[in-house]
Amino acid sequence: MSEFKTIHDIFAPLSAGAPGAFNLADDAALLDQSAFVVTKDIIVAGVHFLPKDPLDLVARKLIRVNLSDLAAKGAKPVGYFLGCVWPTNIKREQIELFGSGLREDQETYRVALYGGDTTMHIAKGAPLTLSATFFGIPSRQGLTKRSGAAAGDDLYLSGTVGDAGLGLAALKKEMKFTTVDKASLAGRYHLPEPRLSLGAALAGLATAAIDVSDGVIADAAHLARASGVSANLDAAAIPLSRAARDWALAQDEFDAAIATLAGFGDDYELLFSAPPSMRRSIGVAAKASRTEVVRVGSLSRGEGVSLSDGQGTAIAITSAGFDHFRK
Amino acid sequence: MSEFKTIHDIFAPLSAGAPGAFNLADDAALLDQSAFVVTKDIIVAGVHFLPKDPLDLVARKLIRVNLSDLAAKGAKPVGYFLGCVWPTNIKREQIELFGSGLREDQETYRVALYGGDTTMHIAKGAPLTLSATFFGIPSRQGLTKRSGAAAGDDLYLSGTVGDAGLGLAALKKEMKFTTVDKASLAGRYHLPEPRLSLGAALAGLATAAIDVSDGVIADAAHLARASGVSANLDAAAIPLSRAARDWALAQDEFDAAIATLAGFGDDYELLFSAPPSMRRSIGVAAKASRTEVVRVGSLSRGEGVSLSDGQGTAIAITSAGFDHFRK
Repeated sequence: MSEFKTIHDIFAPLSAGAPGAFNLADDAALLDQSAFVVTKDIIVAGVHFLPKDPLDLVARKLIRVNLSDLAAKGAKPVGYFLGCVWPTNIKREQIELFGSGLREDQETYRVALYGGDTTMHIAKGAPLTLSATFFGIPSRQGLTKRSGAAAGDDLYLSGTVGDAGLGLAALKKEMKFTTVDKASLAGRYHLPEPRLSLGAALAGLATAAIDVSDGVIADAAHLARASGVSANLDAAAIPLSRAARDWALAQDEFDAAIATLAGFGDDYELLFSAPPSMRRSIGVAAKASRTEVVRVGSLSRGEGVSLSDGQGTAIAITSAGFDHFRK
Repeated sequence: MSEFKTIHDIFAPLSAGAPGAFNLADDAALLDQSAFVVTKDIIVAGVHFLPKDPLDLVARKLIRVNLSDLAAKGAKPVGYFLGCVWPTNIKREQIELFGSGLREDQETYRVALYGGDTTMHIAKGAPLTLSATFFGIPSRQGLTKRSGAAAGDDLYLSGTVGDAGLGLAALKKEMKFTTVDKASLAGRYHLPEPRLSLGAALAGLATAAIDVSDGVIADAAHLARASGVSANLDAAAIPLSRAARDWALAQDEFDAAIATLAGFGDDYELLFSAPPSMRRSIGVAAKASRTEVVRVGSLSRGEGVSLSDGQGTAIAITSAGFDHFRK
């Protein structure tokens, strides 16, 4: 399938309603707004998604992991630029399936495709590689940075964590679950839910925020490092789904299991900080955005991240998922 | 080498002077301007550059192919977002070399790194894949589109074409040249020169423009298609370097050799259109930007692209480089 036909048939329709995208028939797009928040994420087959994952789900994951970054910033998404490097043996139906996934999530999140580049591997077996650069409009309350947290702030987490990692293990047949649990956990891995409403509601309230892509522990460390503080996580407070809790209870050591779940990535929840004086406002923001939010720890002077049980005893953090190359 | 160290040591210094980049320590960047022209290009080892090309040259090529798109639009570059997927066996020195190439061209073109993503292949032998999303400020005279050309317009070309293709053939040892010619042709392949000054001078004068990445014939077809006209190229007018002319003269059929050179990509010259009434202004713009520009044909009603010799006889266009997947 030629590049022109691919763009004309599959991608150009995805730019409808974005005049500055010039129907994807130009070298560049024109963005006519007053300021932008921009983020870029790359996903690679075999690294960030499974080589056999259906391409509509992969497309939607690509959109969602990028939207999750905008959610952390409190920004409202507008559109994106797409880069695709297809494997040598890609078929038209596969690219169409990919396009249908883009379309579905474009409608869900009201974003449009503005441009990009599509090319093909020459090396046999080289993996599908996808890049997206998303842009959004900052909230009037400003942009929530990673670096704004202060010692004394509370740490909060949305939703539940560890599910995507368990879902990945289930999909790779490394762990066994009931059919129902497997479906829900795999769903968390395949289709993260970017916390856009919550992120927008937190703008001006949260002192710092990050989306949990590397795992709660690693991302708490990122936030703490950027803000020049240390993060202290309460293992008992880390929110778990019923399936994840069942899994943890079935392990030899419950605390170690919690540490494992807090080391799993790909959940795309929001981890954020706010001073204790804002507790009520955070509750209101969570309620307004219909998102579960719990307090999971606090920030203090120093550096690094610690995890402790209900009695304040430190739980060992394994290095897995901590300072790895992936983001 | 960890992702954090890579970003902190090598990439974050490249964001100096770009306050909205937050020292690359955040999930997103903030762009605070009134309007943007945005473009995205991906380059893959073995497809768009040679696997053995030094990574500083690869970095500079990545910057330049993207700047070339902004040049075609008449936009002034500001900064970029970078995406890297490294091979499994990448060494720190290699990434440093890549960073030094970025720095060199950032200084040349006065652009800054605003953000991005860096990750690593898991599959052994999977090729280095690089993506950049560049943004610039549109000219006050507006953005030069691909689609603005009209029947009757002249077609112009900057610099010389075919050199990069010959340079690639020389590097792959498919063709032989003198040492001096090989160096100059290979230089055209490794380090294209984005025609930013010319592009800026053409804003408001050119009715349409495109950068020659797929080859003169293919890109004339792209411009003609976007504008709803046909392009007629005069083979005798196509500007050739001394080395390319020598090569063409040494071939069995000179006309066929010209068609081959006009089918080669990667020259990153500007192909643009303007009405005959603007010939003097185009000459002034070329002079002001110190760029050689020649008239290479015209646009007429209809569709497609034709190449003819000095007597108006059609020269066969091979399909090579015409409707391929690469861009």
